[in-house]
Amino acid sequence: VPASPTHIANTIETELLQRVAAAVPSHGAGRVADYIPALASADPAAFGFAVATVDGEVYGTGSWLAPFSIQSIAKVFSLSLAVARDAAAVWGRVGREPSGDPFNSLAALEHASGIPPNPFVNAGALVVTDVLREMTGDACGAVLDFVREESGNPTIGFNAAVAASEADNGDRNAALAHLLASYGNLRGPVDRVLDDYVRQCAVEMSCRDLALAGTFLARHGVRRDATRLLSRSDAKRINAIMLMCGVYDAAGEFAYRVGLPAKSGVGGGILAVIPNRCALCAWSPGLDAAGNSVAAVAALDAFTTMTGWSVF
Amino acid sequence: VPASPTHIANTIETELLQRVAAAVPSHGAGRVADYIPALASADPAAFGFAVATVDGEVYGTGSWLAPFSIQSIAKVFSLSLAVARDAAAVWGRVGREPSGDPFNSLAALEHASGIPPNPFVNAGALVVTDVLREMTGDACGAVLDFVREESGNPTIGFNAAVAASEADNGDRNAALAHLLASYGNLRGPVDRVLDDYVRQCAVEMSCRDLALAGTFLARHGVRRDATRLLSRSDAKRINAIMLMCGVYDAAGEFAYRVGLPAKSGVGGGILAVIPNRCALCAWSPGLDAAGNSVAAVAALDAFTTMTGWSVF
Amino acid sequence: VPASPTHIANTIETELLQRVAAAVPSHGAGRVADYIPALASADPAAFGFAVATVDGEVYGTGSWLAPFSIQSIAKVFSLSLAVARDAAAVWGRVGREPSGDPFNSLAALEHASGIPPNPFVNAGALVVTDVLREMTGDACGAVLDFVREESGNPTIGFNAAVAASEADNGDRNAALAHLLASYGNLRGPVDRVLDDYVRQCAVEMSCRDLALAGTFLARHGVRRDATRLLSRSDAKRINAIMLMCGVYDAAGEFAYRVGLPAKSGVGGGILAVIPNRCALCAWSPGLDAAGNSVAAVAALDAFTTMTGWSVF
Amino acid sequence: VPASPTHIANTIETELLQRVAAAVPSHGAGRVADYIPALASADPAAFGFAVATVDGEVYGTGSWLAPFSIQSIAKVFSLSLAVARDAAAVWGRVGREPSGDPFNSLAALEHASGIPPNPFVNAGALVVTDVLREMTGDACGAVLDFVREESGNPTIGFNAAVAASEADNGDRNAALAHLLASYGNLRGPVDRVLDDYVRQCAVEMSCRDLALAGTFLARHGVRRDATRLLSRSDAKRINAIMLMCGVYDAAGEFAYRVGLPAKSGVGGGILAVIPNRCALCAWSPGLDAAGNSVAAVAALDAFTTMTGWSVF
Repeated sequence: VPASPTHIANTIETELLQRVAAAVPSHGAGRVADYIPALASADPAAFGFAVATVDGEVYGTGSWLAPFSIQSIAKVFSLSLAVARDAAAVWGRVGREPSGDPFNSLAALEHASGIPPNPFVNAGALVVTDVLREMTGDACGAVLDFVREESGNPTIGFNAAVAASEADNGDRNAALAHLLASYGNLRGPVDRVLDDYVRQCAVEMSCRDLALAGTFLARHGVRRDATRLLSRSDAKRINAIMLMCGVYDAAGEFAYRVGLPAKSGVGGGILAVIPNRCALCAWSPGLDAAGNSVAAVAALDAFTTMTGWSVF
Repeated sequence: VPASPTHIANTIETELLQRVAAAVPSHGAGRVADYIPALASADPAAFGFAVATVDGEVYGTGSWLAPFSIQSIAKVFSLSLAVARDAAAVWGRVGREPSGDPFNSLAALEHASGIPPNPFVNAGALVVTDVLREMTGDACGAVLDFVREESGNPTIGFNAAVAASEADNGDRNAALAHLLASYGNLRGPVDRVLDDYVRQCAVEMSCRDLALAGTFLARHGVRRDATRLLSRSDAKRINAIMLMCGVYDAAGEFAYRVGLPAKSGVGGGILAVIPNRCALCAWSPGLDAAGNSVAAVAALDAFTTMTGWSVF
Repeated sequence: VPASPTHIANTIETELLQRVAAAVPSHGAGRVADYIPALASADPAAFGFAVATVDGEVYGTGSWLAPFSIQSIAKVFSLSLAVARDAAAVWGRVGREPSGDPFNSLAALEHASGIPPNPFVNAGALVVTDVLREMTGDACGAVLDFVREESGNPTIGFNAAVAASEADNGDRNAALAHLLASYGNLRGPVDRVLDDYVRQCAVEMSCRDLALAGTFLARHGVRRDATRLLSRSDAKRINAIMLMCGVYDAAGEFAYRVGLPAKSGVGGGILAVIPNRCALCAWSPGLDAAGNSVAAVAALDAFTTMTGWSVF
Repeated sequence: VPASPTHIANTIETELLQRVAAAVPSHGAGRVADYIPALASADPAAFGFAVATVDGEVYGTGSWLAPFSIQSIAKVFSLSLAVARDAAAVWGRVGREPSGDPFNSLAALEHASGIPPNPFVNAGALVVTDVLREMTGDACGAVLDFVREESGNPTIGFNAAVAASEADNGDRNAALAHLLASYGNLRGPVDRVLDDYVRQCAVEMSCRDLALAGTFLARHGVRRDATRLLSRSDAKRINAIMLMCGVYDAAGEFAYRVGLPAKSGVGGGILAVIPNRCALCAWSPGLDAAGNSVAAVAALDAFTTMTGWSVF
C-alpha cells in the first residue's frame, strides 16, 4: 500500500531536507579515500542530499548538484542491466548471499572455487562486468546510457584520470580478475574487463542524478519512461541484495541505523531505496573504517528517523 | 503508516489463509531433521500456519494448534530478553553482521578470537544464553515465562527427552562452548550453559503460540500487555538481524522470496515479522538443504505474494 | 654407516658436554609457560643436557637428573606405542604432513573434516591417545610402562597436580576433543580421553630418562632389551614427522639451526634423535615465542655444530 | 664424517644404478601434466636416473641424457643464487616454514599479508624471482649461467614455446603476482617478473645436468670450481627447506619413503641431495595426485633403500 505521490511530495516540500542537513553535524568527519590521488583531493566538508520520488519529482539540499565519483554505486546499475538481459546468466556465475569476508577477499573466492558470494564484493562486480560486456560489448557504455536516460542528464561521463589512477593502483583487482579467469569465471581478456570495471567506478554523477537513476528500484523495476527494465521479483531481489551486501562489512549496523536497501561507494556517496516511495542519495567524502561516508550515513539515518520510512 | 488493524483483520478473515495453504503443494517435501531421534519421528506431511496481528487477533489454518519443537526460533526470544535487560552486555560479546560461514563454524569463531558474528549462529546463541543466565539464573526459564505470557498459554514447556537427546548429540555445540570459554566469552560452567541452551531448543509451541509470542517485534518492542520490552530502535535492530541472519545460509534467497525478518528452526517452524502489521508462523517438518522448512518457506512466499507485504 | 659406539663414547667423554653447556649463555632467557600454575613456578635458570648412545651409555651435564614436566614430548611415546600395535589404525585417523596452522587450531581441523594434519598438533595427539586407549585401556599407563623400562627408572610417574591444573585450563583441548568427536574421530568418552591426555603431559622425567627412553628411535625401532618395538620404516617415519612437525611452528628454523628430528614441550624440554648414533635431551624452562626452550635449542645447536651430526 | 669419494664411486660403479632402474616397475604410471600442451606430449614411459658425486663423477641409467622441462626444480637454483647475493633480502620477504596449504594458494598468502610461507610455493618463487631480477636484471639468465657452469653443458637453454604456453595458462600465477604486488612484495613490473618466472620453469636439462648442477648442495655450498656459492649454514638451510617443502603437499610421505632433501617439478623430474655424498636426479613424466613423478619417487626410494643413505 504505497503512500500517494502527492503526500510524499508534500511531506518533502516542507523543511524536511533542511532538517536532515541540519541533523548531520559530521560534515568533514571521517577520512577521505586516499588510495588514488584523484579521490584524495576531495573536500571532506562537502555534503549533498537528494530525494527522487517514484512519480519523478526530485528535491535536494547542499551540494546536491555537484558531480562526484560514484565508485561502487555503479555496481547497482551494471547488475540491474545484466539481470535485465539474462538473469540466469548472472546468477549462474555469482551468488546472492552476504559474506563475512572483506569486500576484496581472495581467500573467500578461492574457497568458493571462483564463484563470488554476491555481486557487490569486487570479485562479483568483475564477473557482472564480464557478463555485461559479453552482452553489450561495453559495460561502462551501457551504464552511462542508462543513467543518462534515467536522470535526464546527457552530460554524465567517466573521469579518465580517475579511471587511469584506479588501474595503476589496481593490483588487488587484477589479482581477483586473474583468479576468476583461472576458474573460467572471467571470460573476456582480463585487461579489457578491468578497464571496463574501473571506468564504471570513475563515472561522475551528482546526488540528483543518482537519486533519479535509482528510482527504477523504488518502482520495482519500472523505468522513468514507464517501460519495465526488471521484473518485479528481480527488482525486489536486487533491493534485498543491497540491504544485505550494499555497505561493505557494515550491513548489520547500517540495517539497524538506516534500515534501507543501499549501496555505498568510496567516493562518499550512498544510494538508498524506499520501495514504492523514493530513491535517496547522500554524499560526503569522509569515510568511516568500513568505507562508508560518515555524513551520508548520518543523513540517511536522520531521514528515516524523521519519516519513519525504514523497512523494519 | 501502518494499515488499520481492522483492515488487516478483514483481509485475513477472507479466505487468505486457506489460499496460502492451498498454494503450498509441498507438504512432505524436504527431509526431516534426523540428527536427534525425537525430531526424526515428526510427520513430514504436517503443516500449520498462523497470523497474529498487532492488535492481538490470531488466525490459523492446518495444524496451527499442534505443538512442535521450536529449536533455533528460541534464539529470538533469548536475544530479545537479554537485550531488554542490558543491550551493551550483549553487543560487547557478540557481533551483528551476517556471516558467510556455516551456522556452527568453529573456524569463523577462531578467526574472530571468540566473538561470534551474530546472535543466531550457534556460537552467538550460546553467548546470549550465557549472558541471560548471568542475568536471570535460568535462560530457558526466562524464555518460558515470556512466551507463556505473550501467547496466553501457560502450558508451554520444554520436552525433556528432546533436550537430553540434543545434549547426547551435541559434540559440536560442546566444542563451540569450550572454544568460547577458552576466549573468556562463556563464563558460566560449560555444562550448565549447554544444558540451558538445549532446553530452550526443546521448547514446544504451536504456530498460534509462536505468532502471538512474536508480535512484540511487529509492535517494535511493545508487549501484549502494552508494556515496552525493547526500545523501538532495539526492536528494529533485532528485526534487521533476523532479516540478515535468521535463516542459516539462505538469507539472500529467503530475502528475495519472502522479504521479511524471520527465524527458522530445524523443527520445521519459521517465525516471521511484518513490522506494524503482524507476526506469522509457518510449520512443516521437511527441510531443504539449508535447514529451512520447504513448505513453511513456500507458505510465507505465498502470503507475501498475495498481500504485497514484503519489505522490499 | 653408523660410527662405532666406542668412538661416540670417546668423543662424548671428552669435555664435549661441558663445552655445550658453556656455549649456552641463555639460561634464564625466554618466558616460562604460565598458563598453568604448576609450570609457572619453574626456575628459568635451570638447565640440563643428556646424551644416550645407541649402545646404552648415557652422559649428562647441568641438572640432567632433575625431573621436569615432559608435556608434548609424551606425544612421541604414545605415537610410537600406538603405531607399534597397529600402524594402519593410527594413519587412518591422523595425517603425516606438516601444517602451517597453529598447533591448537580448530579451523584447520574443521577444514579437514576432523582429520588432524599430523600426530603432534594437539588434535592429532588426542586422536592418538584415543587410539592407544582403545588398544590398552590406559594410554598414560602404557607410556609410563614404556619409559620406565627404557630408562631403567621405575619411579617415573605423572604429577597429579599438574594434570589437574591442565584439565582446569583445558577449554581449548576440550573444544578440539568435542570437535573430533563430532566427526567420529574420537570414540572414547571425551572426558576420559582428555584425562588420559593431560596425565601424559604431566609425566615428569629427567634429561637422562628422556634421552634413554628416546634411543629406540636412534636404533630405528629397537628397544633397550634388543626387542623390536617398531619396524625400521615405521621408526624412520616417526623421525621424519619429528623433523617436520616436532617443534610447533618453528620447524623450518629449527631444521636449519639444529637439523635433527626432535620434539619439544612447553615444560622446556626437547628430545632429539641422531639416527644410528644417539638420543639427546636438553632442558631449560624459558620459552621463545613459538613455545620452544631458548636454552635447549641453543644447546642442541651447539652440539650439532661441534659434532657435525646434523642430517643436512 | 663424509664417506670417501672413492668408496662412493666404487659403490656406484657396481650395478647399483641398474638395480635401481630394475626396481622401478612404474614407468608409465601416473598422469602426465596436461595443463600446458608442451608438457602433455611427453612420453609417459620415459625414465632417467643420474648420480653426481661430490668429487665430480657422474653416473646414469635410462634416458639420463635426455633433456626435459625442469619446471619447479628451477626454484632451487634461483633461491640459491638470490641467497648467495643477499640472504637477508630474501628472508625479509619470504618465510622458511612448511605450509599445509596448496602450493598455489592465494588464501594462505592473503592471511599472511603477502609474505609467502616458503620459497617453493609459487608465491614464494615469484618473490625470489623478483629479488634475483633486482640483483641481476634477468633471473632466468642468472640461473642459466649457473647451471651451464655447474653441469659443464653450455647448450642448456629454455624452451620458448613452453614458456609462452605457461604464460598463456598462467592466470593463477598472475593472480598471485598481482596479490604480492598489492602488498608491496613484488616490485618489478608484474608482466616482466611473470615472464622471467616462466622462462625458468621452461629450462630444459637432463638428469645428468641436474645432478651435476645440484652437487653444490651436497658440498654444503661449494661449487664445482671449488669456489663457495653459499655459506655452509645457508646450504644446510636450503637442504632443510627442500626436505620440508620440496615436494608440494607430500613432504611427510616423501620424507618417510625417501628421506632426502629434494625438489620436484611437474615435468617429472626430482632433484635430491645426500649431504657430503652426492646429488641425484630421477625423471619420468607420469605424476601422482600431488604432482610428483611416480617413477622418480620409486627410483629414489629404491636408491635410499639399497644404500641406506636416508637422513632419518
